[in-house]
Amino acid sequence: MRLVRYLGKDGPRSGLLEDGHVLDVSASLDAPDDTAALIDLVMGLSRSALDGTRVPLADVTLLAPLRPRKNVFAIGKNYLEHVRELPGADAKAEPPPAFPIVFSKPPTAVIGPGESIDTSNDPSSTTDYEGELAVVIGKNGKRIQPEDAMSHVFGYTIVNDVTARDLQKRHGQWLTGKAPDTFCPMGPCIVSTDEIGDVRQLAIRTSVNGEVRQRGSLADLIFDIPSLIATLSSVMTLESGDVIATGTPPGVGAGFDPPRYLRPGDVVEITIDPIGTLTNPVV
Amino acid sequence: MRLVRYLGKDGPRSGLLEDGHVLDVSASLDAPDDTAALIDLVMGLSRSALDGTRVPLADVTLLAPLRPRKNVFAIGKNYLEHVRELPGADAKAEPPPAFPIVFSKPPTAVIGPGESIDTSNDPSSTTDYEGELAVVIGKNGKRIQPEDAMSHVFGYTIVNDVTARDLQKRHGQWLTGKAPDTFCPMGPCIVSTDEIGDVRQLAIRTSVNGEVRQRGSLADLIFDIPSLIATLSSVMTLESGDVIATGTPPGVGAGFDPPRYLRPGDVVEITIDPIGTLTNPVV
Repeated sequence: MRLVRYLGKDGPRSGLLEDGHVLDVSASLDAPDDTAALIDLVMGLSRSALDGTRVPLADVTLLAPLRPRKNVFAIGKNYLEHVRELPGADAKAEPPPAFPIVFSKPPTAVIGPGESIDTSNDPSSTTDYEGELAVVIGKNGKRIQPEDAMSHVFGYTIVNDVTARDLQKRHGQWLTGKAPDTFCPMGPCIVSTDEIGDVRQLAIRTSVNGEVRQRGSLADLIFDIPSLIATLSSVMTLESGDVIATGTPPGVGAGFDPPRYLRPGDVVEITIDPIGTLTNPVV
Repeated sequence: MRLVRYLGKDGPRSGLLEDGHVLDVSASLDAPDDTAALIDLVMGLSRSALDGTRVPLADVTLLAPLRPRKNVFAIGKNYLEHVRELPGADAKAEPPPAFPIVFSKPPTAVIGPGESIDTSNDPSSTTDYEGELAVVIGKNGKRIQPEDAMSHVFGYTIVNDVTARDLQKRHGQWLTGKAPDTFCPMGPCIVSTDEIGDVRQLAIRTSVNGEVRQRGSLADLIFDIPSLIATLSSVMTLESGDVIATGTPPGVGAGFDPPRYLRPGDVVEITIDPIGTLTNPVV
């Protein structure tokens, strides 16, 4: 199942992406674009219980697949080669973090596929891309054991953890540099786990203006998805609709010398098959 | 005006606290306990436009005055004496941060007055209190200038930025140590700015089991409220219902040698007149 949000005639709606069409299932929801409620619904129902009008995908504008009810959780330094590419790191021997580094991005930062990353929200002009696989939680849970973790996952989407590098450093904690408006592109859809198979087999690729900058394999996560879910839920209740961006592979702009930050006119594309490609222009 | 949320016969509701009674104004709201929507309403209306049933305060259970729609923003190291009491700091010369340190606490951490802080959510047994004044935003804004900032404030409440000290350090970024369930007591009410006057005149006091541990004056904030609003909104849109905890004065448990962390059976009281006292037992 592929969940999307899109702009309907009278505002945002949630739907299912099927055969090049969007099935409008908003009639089944209290709020027409509450994808988190849709996740609750489809976790308890079979696909056949959902019906609605079909609209050709070409006729709709996709939005971020989810309106988060809290900040998006994100993980720092979760690929060893990325840890070692960062300025100041030992390129050969920098150790991985001993515990997951968790931070957050507010819902105001979330934009959908095709929407613009606005560098004017970064007064420091050090806007960087970070392509990431994001986990979407499907079932509430607390103190989830790693072996049970995958039963709490509804599916996966793509997040660009866009970062204002100077602000990230300047403010001590990372939030300010991670929080600017438009700095959390998400989409194009949420693909349920049954269409993914073994998530460790997935590959992620980030391009800027068609030039591949980042390549990674989800097998290379330092803290894998069950471990991240276990860590977060060891202290807090994870809720359906929660999003956890799992960290970025090597190749970020800050890893180049001199750094290659995003500039107006650039286009960033992040691809994870079979989720698709998340494309965002930079203004 | 004093906004509260409370447990009605059929679930949480929003109301106004007046003369020892709660006025149930939930009929004016789409969702009966959506205090952020209530704030939008009262920012555009006079008090006389709101009506409902009156219930004696003694007959209701107060909840956290707000169900946040995103993480609570919080500010670290915003009183110089607190910066200098922390382990490893120079007690006489530790400099203040050059820029505000911003982090967040998820909505799942929020509890109301009288609810229990559950130390079993902190596997490191280093649970600490941090009494704080919190700003509640009343009007959306971006790139708010310090001189306009107060027009975006609806009012104030009290937050206990409860912290698992070992987790705060161990995970690199602070979020994990700030996020455990029950680690964000809030309340007892949100008092609108017109009942506060000059917020810099307010005093804050935190007691544990009746012993005063923290004393501070809002005049001593390193980054004052207009400056915090300007900093946050320089990158992101602030929205009505957003909560910004402004930092804690000296006297936290980690500042003692040996540290004096919270233990089951303790009671934490944070008082800011004229907001009131936020009291939470520890289990």
